Amino acid sequence: MPSAEPASPPAPAGVIPVAASRHSYAVHVGRGLLATLGALMRGLPQAGEGGRCALVTDDRVQALHAGAALESLRGAGFSPALLAVPAGEASKSLHRVEELCEGMAAAGLDRGSLVVALGGGVVGDLAGFAAAVFGRGIPVVQVPTTVMAQVDSSVGGKTGVNLRAGKNLVGAFHPPALVVADVETLRTLPPREWNEGWAEAAKHGVIADRALLNDLARLARSDDDAVAAMVARNVRIKASVVAADEFERAGRRELLNFGHTLGHALETAAGYGTFLHGEAVAVGMMAAARLSRRLAGLPVDDEAALEELLLRLGLPVRFPAGVSTDALIEAMRRDKKFRAGRLRFVLTPRLGEALVSDDVDEEAARAAIGELRAAPIE
Amino acid sequence: MPSAEPASPPAPAGVIPVAASRHSYAVHVGRGLLATLGALMRGLPQAGEGGRCALVTDDRVQALHAGAALESLRGAGFSPALLAVPAGEASKSLHRVEELCEGMAAAGLDRGSLVVALGGGVVGDLAGFAAAVFGRGIPVVQVPTTVMAQVDSSVGGKTGVNLRAGKNLVGAFHPPALVVADVETLRTLPPREWNEGWAEAAKHGVIADRALLNDLARLARSDDDAVAAMVARNVRIKASVVAADEFERAGRRELLNFGHTLGHALETAAGYGTFLHGEAVAVGMMAAARLSRRLAGLPVDDEAALEELLLRLGLPVRFPAGVSTDALIEAMRRDKKFRAGRLRFVLTPRLGEALVSDDVDEEAARAAIGELRAAPIE
Repeated sequence: MPSAEPASPPAPAGVIPVAASRHSYAVHVGRGLLATLGALMRGLPQAGEGGRCALVTDDRVQALHAGAALESLRGAGFSPALLAVPAGEASKSLHRVEELCEGMAAAGLDRGSLVVALGGGVVGDLAGFAAAVFGRGIPVVQVPTTVMAQVDSSVGGKTGVNLRAGKNLVGAFHPPALVVADVETLRTLPPREWNEGWAEAAKHGVIADRALLNDLARLARSDDDAVAAMVARNVRIKASVVAADEFERAGRRELLNFGHTLGHALETAAGYGTFLHGEAVAVGMMAAARLSRRLAGLPVDDEAALEELLLRLGLPVRFPAGVSTDALIEAMRRDKKFRAGRLRFVLTPRLGEALVSDDVDEEAARAAIGELRAAPIE
Repeated sequence: MPSAEPASPPAPAGVIPVAASRHSYAVHVGRGLLATLGALMRGLPQAGEGGRCALVTDDRVQALHAGAALESLRGAGFSPALLAVPAGEASKSLHRVEELCEGMAAAGLDRGSLVVALGGGVVGDLAGFAAAVFGRGIPVVQVPTTVMAQVDSSVGGKTGVNLRAGKNLVGAFHPPALVVADVETLRTLPPREWNEGWAEAAKHGVIADRALLNDLARLARSDDDAVAAMVARNVRIKASVVAADEFERAGRRELLNFGHTLGHALETAAGYGTFLHGEAVAVGMMAAARLSRRLAGLPVDDEAALEELLLRLGLPVRFPAGVSTDALIEAMRRDKKFRAGRLRFVLTPRLGEALVSDDVDEEAARAAIGELRAAPIE
C-alpha cells in the first residue's frame, strides 16, 4: 500500500461526540462496555423518570448478548421488554416495524420510553426506524454488535426498511441518543461477517484517510485494543462527514456512498442475501476505482493498492459471472440515489480524497462492470 | 353565548404563513383554489426540476375531486400518479403505507418528487406519513377537502397511522410544503361530516379565541366567503400554537388536545367508526368543561354556552349508555398522551383560555363521565 503521507497514530478508543441538528450524542467505543449499558443510559437526559424500554434484537444475537444487556439494564433500574425478530435482511420490513410497535405498545412504552437496538445493521436500521415512528419518535440507543454496525451504520441517524422495489426505500433520519460499541461482542462474529464489516472502513480510508488503509491491512482480529482504536477512528470519520451534512443535502454525506452505487445494484441484481452488504460494496469500490482511473485520474498504483487491501480483508473484488450488466444498470437506475435519471458516482482522484460526479455515462459504467467480471458471459 | 370581549372582525381568507423548524410554508384558503394547485406547486422551491408526483386520495374523494386536481397538476407540467385507498379510518395502517410507498416507487418517484394528499384527515395523515418515510422524507402538499382537515389536521405537520393498540401510535412530524384549502370542495360533504369538522373549530375558540365561538354559532353553510374566513381564522390559531411548540414538548401544543383525552377514549371504547372524530371530541369537550368547572373555576354559564354551541353545530354532548366508564378510563390509560401513568387533562378556566393539568384524579374523571351519560347503566 503506497502512502504519500505519514501514517497518523492510531486513535485511542473512547468517547466520540457526534453533532446532530436536534441533539448531539456520544459514541462509546471499548472493551466490556455492554455491562455498562444501563448506567450509560441512566445518564441520558432522554431517560426521563420512567424505566420502560424495549430491547430489540434478533434471534441470533439474543442467544449471545441479550442476557448481559438485560442484566445491565435491570441493574440500572430499567424494565426492559425483549422483542426479537428473525436474523437476516428479510426482517427489514414494514411488517416487522408494525410488529415491533405493537409489541412496544403492549409493553406499555410511551413517549418517555427508550428503544435499545442490540445487533448488527439490520437490527439497528429496523429498531431505529421503529423508534423514529413510535409515538412520532422516541429515543433509540444503538448497541452495535457487528463490525459493519460499529464502524458505520450505528452512527449518523439513518434508519429504514426495504420495499419490494428496493433497499432502504422507506426510512427516517433518527439520530441515536447514545451508541455503545463493545468490541468484545465482535469476538462471536463468523469470519465472513467479520470480513464484510471492514469494507466500510476501507471506504472511509478511500474517501478521507489514506493512512487508515495501511493500518487496516495490518489489523489483527485478536487484538481487542487495536480493534477498538480502529472502530473509534472510523466513527470519527463518519461523525465528521455526517455533522457536515446530516440530511444528505449538501453533497458531503453522499461521499459515503463510494462503492455503493454498484454495490447496491449488485445486492439487488444478485438477490438479497447472495452477497453481504460489505461484500457487494467491496466489488462496487473496485468498479468505482476503475471509473476513477478513467474519469478522475486515480493512479493505477492506487487502484492496485485498494484491490490488494480488499483481498487481504477476505473480500470479493469481481462481479460474478451470473449477474448480467443489464440487470446491474437497471438496478442502478431504480436506486433512489439517482435524481432525475442521471448516473451519479462517487469517484476518488487519489486514495484519501473523493468527489461526486454526475458526468458518468452508462457506457463507462458498463465498461467498468465488464472489465471486473469474474468470467465473461456476454 | 356570553362574550366578555368585543367580537374580533372575521379574518379575511387568504394566505397564512406557518413557521416550522426546517421550512416554513403557506396555507392558501379560498374559493376555487383546486384549479390553481399545479401552479402553486410549481412555485415551491421543493418542486425541483422533475415533474413526478403522487396524488394520494380515497375512492370517495377520487370520484369528486381527483379529476380537477389531476388536470391542474398536468397543466403545470407535473406527471401525477394517482394512488387511491379505500375511504375510512381503516386505511390509516402501516399496510397502506407500504402499499402507497410501493406504488410511489413503481411510479418512479425519487427524492425530487412530491406527494399530494387530496382528501380528509385520513388521507392527510396517511399520505403525509408515507411522504415522511419514503426515501427518508419527500415533500407533501396537503389539499384538505373536509372541514376537519381544513381547520385543523392539514396544518401543523402531524402525520401517522393507527395500530391495533390505538390511534396515531405510529407517525412522524412532517410539515407540509404547502396547504391548499379550497372551500368549494366542502360543498359535497355529507351533513354529518360537515358538522363534525367544526368541533375542532369550537375547540380553537375555547382555548384561544372566545369571540370565534359567537361567530361560529352564526356561520351559514351556504356562504362560501364566510366559511373561507372562518377556516382561515382557525388556521391562524392552529399555526400560532404549532409555531410555539412544533414538537409538542413545551406544553403549548398540548392545549390543542382540549376535549381529546376523553374524545380519543370514546372513539376507542365505542369502536372506531361509531363516532366520527369530531363527534367524540365534542363529547370530550363537554367532559373537559365539566372538569374545568370543578377544578379550574370555569363559570357555569360558560359551560352552558359551550353545550349550546355544540348542539347548534349538530354535535353530540353526552356519552352513550352502551360505553362503560371502566372502558373509557382504561382507554385513557393506554393513550400515548399519558406519561408515566398520570391523568393529564387540558382544562379551561374561562372560554378563550386553557391550561394543562396533571392533577386530575381518576375519581374526578369518573364523575364527569357519569354526569354526562345519556342514560345510566351502572
